[in-house]
Amino acid sequence: MKVGYLGPSASFTHNVAVKAFPEANRMPFANITEVIKSYEEGFVDYAIIPVENSIEGSVHETLDYLFHQAEIEAIAEIIQPIKQQLLATTQTKKIEKIFSHPQAIAQGKKYINAHYPAAKIEMTASTAYAARFIAEHPEENFAAIAPVAAAKEYGLEIIAQDIQEMDENYTRFWVLGHQKRSFDLAKLNQKVSLALTLPNNLPGALYKALSVFAWRGIDLTKIESRPLKTALGEYFFIVDVENKNDTLVSFALEELSVLGIDYKILGRYDVYKL
Amino acid sequence: MKVGYLGPSASFTHNVAVKAFPEANRMPFANITEVIKSYEEGFVDYAIIPVENSIEGSVHETLDYLFHQAEIEAIAEIIQPIKQQLLATTQTKKIEKIFSHPQAIAQGKKYINAHYPAAKIEMTASTAYAARFIAEHPEENFAAIAPVAAAKEYGLEIIAQDIQEMDENYTRFWVLGHQKRSFDLAKLNQKVSLALTLPNNLPGALYKALSVFAWRGIDLTKIESRPLKTALGEYFFIVDVENKNDTLVSFALEELSVLGIDYKILGRYDVYKL
Repeated sequence: MKVGYLGPSASFTHNVAVKAFPEANRMPFANITEVIKSYEEGFVDYAIIPVENSIEGSVHETLDYLFHQAEIEAIAEIIQPIKQQLLATTQTKKIEKIFSHPQAIAQGKKYINAHYPAAKIEMTASTAYAARFIAEHPEENFAAIAPVAAAKEYGLEIIAQDIQEMDENYTRFWVLGHQKRSFDLAKLNQKVSLALTLPNNLPGALYKALSVFAWRGIDLTKIESRPLKTALGEYFFIVDVENKNDTLVSFALEELSVLGIDYKILGRYDVYKL
Repeated sequence: MKVGYLGPSASFTHNVAVKAFPEANRMPFANITEVIKSYEEGFVDYAIIPVENSIEGSVHETLDYLFHQAEIEAIAEIIQPIKQQLLATTQTKKIEKIFSHPQAIAQGKKYINAHYPAAKIEMTASTAYAARFIAEHPEENFAAIAPVAAAKEYGLEIIAQDIQEMDENYTRFWVLGHQKRSFDLAKLNQKVSLALTLPNNLPGALYKALSVFAWRGIDLTKIESRPLKTALGEYFFIVDVENKNDTLVSFALEELSVLGIDYKILGRYDVYKL
């Protein structure tokens, strides 16, 4: 069995892949779009991608691709605590430049401003890339913000531990697949993720869409607008609903259709925690 | 009068500053947080920052700062069409690296993938920085994605015109200020932007918050959840309401309070178009 993940080795997504698929042939891809494409094109059986972080919010590359371009469903969600480390090579004397993924930079901003206010910031495609890059340039005064696993993988020193802004820092990862399967992880609950497109000619359409869930007592755990990429002020809505009762959720979806509200199912999944 | 804007010279925000405040002393700042701080600390009388793009969505740095850290209101909104150009120096032979702001990179992704699939991408703090940076390194095979004004400002050639993904590409800019003032620009409508924090003990709180506007016939032009940065699944909600009737909106806000829903006013403003 092949499992694609957002690489390189020692990324946060890699850790999820190792825990969820300990026996699989795990294959790294360079960015989220390539991970999803590897799955779409049948090159891997499952794919793992980040979908939302508790501090930085949704991963737009994931949600926009799944909404605009793909016909894929998430079959599981895995929640992982995120801890960020400041890494450098043993040769680094004075940190002049810090590399990392934009979300990790944002999470480490307070620490950097306090301790390295003069350091230049460079964005990379992932935290693990940042770690690999500075390991390849030991002669430079570079540092990276990356997970613990990256220190081991690329032979780097941990200069400062757990520099993320909040202790309550989690990322949701989705497992894309054709068939639901269970994982040997702690199970929390069940959810359905929808992307709603509202008709222009239905006044109060969003309110009506939410009514469909509210009067049935179905809890929403998330609602977020994303631009439709047509005009300013035109959105689609990502809604996560807690699925305590399949039949009730089915009725709600049927009522959406009757109201003329289009929905795309992004995932129907069990939620696990690492 | 001093007006702070997201610099450097020839940025999209700079263009808004020139059009809105043709007579003012306009001062560039390096990033959005610094623009807002310059206003907070009384260093400038007005500040101009981007708040949302029609393709990429909200500018989180702006909204998160205004929600979490500031007691500031937007007094005007200015909408500007965004056109992106691919720029290079006259010495550039083969484009090997393309610099720009992440939103401009996202908007130009389709064009780059089609014409320069091998080019490396480097993120910069703004499009105008990217233009200035490549102008300072004419010996390198660098290109930048930036507005037309940046070509003039930094003596660059336009290699490809209007490479943004969508023709309908607009950015909303907010003018922060203590006093409302009018601008010599085309006026569209009036809006109020709110950040709602929902009580945990009120079932269907978001639905109830929206009801307050829905039954009064007040249109919402935007609703978006942003993480509260406390735990996964805890959000605040940015809601833009069209303000056709001050009294009606005041009653709606009062009813929010009665329901125990906290709101912060991010702006009460006229919307203008460039």
